[in-house]
Amino acid sequence: MAELAPKELFGSLASIVGGKRVSIVKRDREVYARDMWPRLLINRRQGGELEHLPHAVVWPESEREVAAVIRYANKQGIAVIPYGGGSGVCGGVVPLRGGITIDLKRMDAIQSISREELVTDVQAGANGERFERELRSKGYTLGHFPSSIYCSTVGGWLACRAAGQLSTKYGKIEDRVVGLTFVTGKGEVIKTDEFARARRGPDWTQLIVGSEGCLGIITSARLRISPAPEITVLRGFEFDNVQEGTRAIRKVMQRGLKPAVVRLYDEVDTFINHISIFESHSEEALETDGLCPWPTKDSGALPALPTPGGEGTRKSGGAGERAMGLGRKLASRIKHGATAAALARPKLVNSTFGALANTVSNSGCKMIIGLEGPRLRTEVEAQLTFAAIERAGGRDEGEEPGLRWLAHRYAVSYKMSPLFREGGFVDTMEVASTWERLPDLYESVKAAIAAHAVVMAHFSHAYADGCSIYFSFAGRAEGLQETQNKYDEIWRAGMAAATRVGGTISHHHGIGLLKGQAMHTEHRESMTLFRALKNTFDPNNIMNPGKMGLPLHGEMSIL
Amino acid sequence: MAELAPKELFGSLASIVGGKRVSIVKRDREVYARDMWPRLLINRRQGGELEHLPHAVVWPESEREVAAVIRYANKQGIAVIPYGGGSGVCGGVVPLRGGITIDLKRMDAIQSISREELVTDVQAGANGERFERELRSKGYTLGHFPSSIYCSTVGGWLACRAAGQLSTKYGKIEDRVVGLTFVTGKGEVIKTDEFARARRGPDWTQLIVGSEGCLGIITSARLRISPAPEITVLRGFEFDNVQEGTRAIRKVMQRGLKPAVVRLYDEVDTFINHISIFESHSEEALETDGLCPWPTKDSGALPALPTPGGEGTRKSGGAGERAMGLGRKLASRIKHGATAAALARPKLVNSTFGALANTVSNSGCKMIIGLEGPRLRTEVEAQLTFAAIERAGGRDEGEEPGLRWLAHRYAVSYKMSPLFREGGFVDTMEVASTWERLPDLYESVKAAIAAHAVVMAHFSHAYADGCSIYFSFAGRAEGLQETQNKYDEIWRAGMAAATRVGGTISHHHGIGLLKGQAMHTEHRESMTLFRALKNTFDPNNIMNPGKMGLPLHGEMSIL
Repeated sequence: MAELAPKELFGSLASIVGGKRVSIVKRDREVYARDMWPRLLINRRQGGELEHLPHAVVWPESEREVAAVIRYANKQGIAVIPYGGGSGVCGGVVPLRGGITIDLKRMDAIQSISREELVTDVQAGANGERFERELRSKGYTLGHFPSSIYCSTVGGWLACRAAGQLSTKYGKIEDRVVGLTFVTGKGEVIKTDEFARARRGPDWTQLIVGSEGCLGIITSARLRISPAPEITVLRGFEFDNVQEGTRAIRKVMQRGLKPAVVRLYDEVDTFINHISIFESHSEEALETDGLCPWPTKDSGALPALPTPGGEGTRKSGGAGERAMGLGRKLASRIKHGATAAALARPKLVNSTFGALANTVSNSGCKMIIGLEGPRLRTEVEAQLTFAAIERAGGRDEGEEPGLRWLAHRYAVSYKMSPLFREGGFVDTMEVASTWERLPDLYESVKAAIAAHAVVMAHFSHAYADGCSIYFSFAGRAEGLQETQNKYDEIWRAGMAAATRVGGTISHHHGIGLLKGQAMHTEHRESMTLFRALKNTFDPNNIMNPGKMGLPLHGEMSIL
Repeated sequence: MAELAPKELFGSLASIVGGKRVSIVKRDREVYARDMWPRLLINRRQGGELEHLPHAVVWPESEREVAAVIRYANKQGIAVIPYGGGSGVCGGVVPLRGGITIDLKRMDAIQSISREELVTDVQAGANGERFERELRSKGYTLGHFPSSIYCSTVGGWLACRAAGQLSTKYGKIEDRVVGLTFVTGKGEVIKTDEFARARRGPDWTQLIVGSEGCLGIITSARLRISPAPEITVLRGFEFDNVQEGTRAIRKVMQRGLKPAVVRLYDEVDTFINHISIFESHSEEALETDGLCPWPTKDSGALPALPTPGGEGTRKSGGAGERAMGLGRKLASRIKHGATAAALARPKLVNSTFGALANTVSNSGCKMIIGLEGPRLRTEVEAQLTFAAIERAGGRDEGEEPGLRWLAHRYAVSYKMSPLFREGGFVDTMEVASTWERLPDLYESVKAAIAAHAVVMAHFSHAYADGCSIYFSFAGRAEGLQETQNKYDEIWRAGMAAATRVGGTISHHHGIGLLKGQAMHTEHRESMTLFRALKNTFDPNNIMNPGKMGLPLHGEMSIL
């Protein structure tokens, strides 16, 4: 594979998909060399070279073509990397050994929508937002709303076990999938169960979900749909602190109430959000910086994002007002370029923000909660849910905070933070645990990150047994090498902290390259299983090699 | 293994678990040679010999002992069969190559019940009813109520992907499990995810659930619990026919309503149930015929079954009354011994019952539906659900039919049908499909069985996308060989019919020996995966060999 002749490769692939759907042009190869992993953005912004490029990119239009490309690659020992929307944040598509990147986006047909069974058959390359829009036009919803919905695909969701913003009601993508079709690393086509609950023996579907292209390529899926909601009820609450807020979420979930979304922002996140540092604005929303390549088929057709709701303003006076002024100044410095000083002293900034959040008496912790569904039932559930939250110490702030969240909810995936231009970086770390361990997980991971970066967190995706925590952080160092070192250190420390207190290393962003090492400490003996599966589906180790903690080179050995 | 010296075997096992917890006595080996598979009951009742006995039975008390027994067996190439309550109906525990049967029932500790996370840690040998009773005493429920609950174990449920009677609300056991500990065929202990929704990569738990001892032995599990319901609301409805009844169930499920139980009996099942042929009676309920061996630890402590509710009587006159009389006579003949004539003419009996069910104008199709949970929400949900059913053509019959069902709901697993004594047999076949295929599945499987046996069906375990059908049938032939041939032919024809119309071969009884062949037609390419897993976990093929369509002899080869 070291001496892969470009023309031969082009010819072989062109004989499968036709010359117009193969490229060995450098510009295309560069586009497909990366996803939205912040480490790659740091590299790019600071003039680093892309270390790994695919040798070729192909755009198949059928499962048959995908299988033929893989069979060819398998014969030649060439690596194959599946590519959906490119919105991943863990480097899952980086072609570590070069090879062929297969972009699935031309396979985007919604093959059927069954009213009879409330399922839909859809190809892996379907764009999330277009797919949902089509379902809505027929009176249904998939119930899956990742913030990347405008630039991610069905196949990508399944590959990384994605969660949408309303997962608390509708479940993660793993709960919406009935069965799927995928092509193994040997080029075989396997179709798993069509009717989910009639499983006999092991569950093959859930084995492929979350495998991030390391076992094969998902080409289509059967997903559950639900009737589109008749109403949506949103509400904001305020709590004195994170402990009270999480306790309230636990109570709601354990009573079997089913809010569609619950988000609790910690003191700093509440404070920062209020003064709009990290908050995205709809006018910046489409500034994707060319990092989210979309097919040319009917490009430019990205629908407008929802317009923002009314601006929430809040009154406070005296010390609170002065503190807000200071916070706003700090925030403004970070936002508008005078970032070096602030981000070079993350501990100071963290403690200042922490102190400000605490002294501004009415800052507290904000919660956004929403329910949706049929009118009558949703109204009853909403009353019961809001009453439970008030009993648990939440102060009702009306629907306005909820509407504001709703208006901005997809913006984050479009925002290319100005910090990257200033030599800094922002990233997110989503971990999870049971309720019992949650306070420890929150404190430990926050402390691990806070030593190196400005950090804040919110709690979302709640279950009866636990919840996930979503940390956002911003850092900076001098020069590319130092910045990368700092970035790596944050992740190393954060993952180690999560593992130490019994949390998990990921809730819905997947593993990719970023968390490969952490797979071993987390899964321990179960990695044996993963290698065995890899050996079965992909004995020549051509499928997305080197990801998810699996080896980069060589054939797989079972033990 | 052919020349396994009993004394050596005893000595080796005694060195692991102590001499008192090993047996090579024939009587014990006979007890553990079988489960409740009707084919084995036929054999037993007609004086056939048990073809396969284990060489030894052991009763380990710890995971460590289980692992040590398996490591010993693996070294010697001796087969190992896990054994829970022995209530399986597919021959899953038959020791086809002899070997060591491991009874898990001494590992029955409820290790923890967490109020904080609503989960419980329990050992695999825990008896279902005792486990549920313990949870109830603390204010919780597992929500899993198989009719075998008095004589089945947690490990058995997980091994076969069991469904309880209230699965429509609480899910199948696969939905209640968070993670599990199991010992592979190499004697390694593997612990899968503790926090279900934080999955990274493939789902290992769901790979072991449903593997029926072919990959290893489940020794403990973490399961989700729910607050015990405040109220239960039950109701009976009547429909003109099966089509209307199933349409009503579909509508309820697709609106997102969550009844705990919905059961729709077809015309014949409704008719027969009414005249009490197959209905179990509580006074017979504990007549287990010695087929459900339970540990001596604190034996005899099986709690009394619920007492029956008021007897439902129904008035009808004229032709209806005469038809009922005829039906009752027929039923009585089957019930009280004069079965040969009736069961030798299954087609005649089926058509007679069918005609009777249709002519008795108010016979129709009965539905039992129940909801449970917190008072207010359950009352609202019940009103909405019952209204939806009435709109779909259901005629409200009040709560009495529901109470009657509730009183008898566990009886079937205890009833040793008198038909076996008369040289006949009864069995059940549970298949499933999507709503679209359901009418075809019902007609095709019914016709396939009806050629050989008296058959009736009910629909239960409903989902938004489909439903399962539970056929009950009774047959008879002259002599052991003929009876077995007829029994086998019913299953062959029934499975083929299900596969032909796109149904699945099982919904919750598992595969075992009975449906092994059908695994291949159903899973096709996915069987490659199963063999690969088997090869990883159990390279010497010692774990429950020859079950689930996997080979009986020889090591596993991947392809």
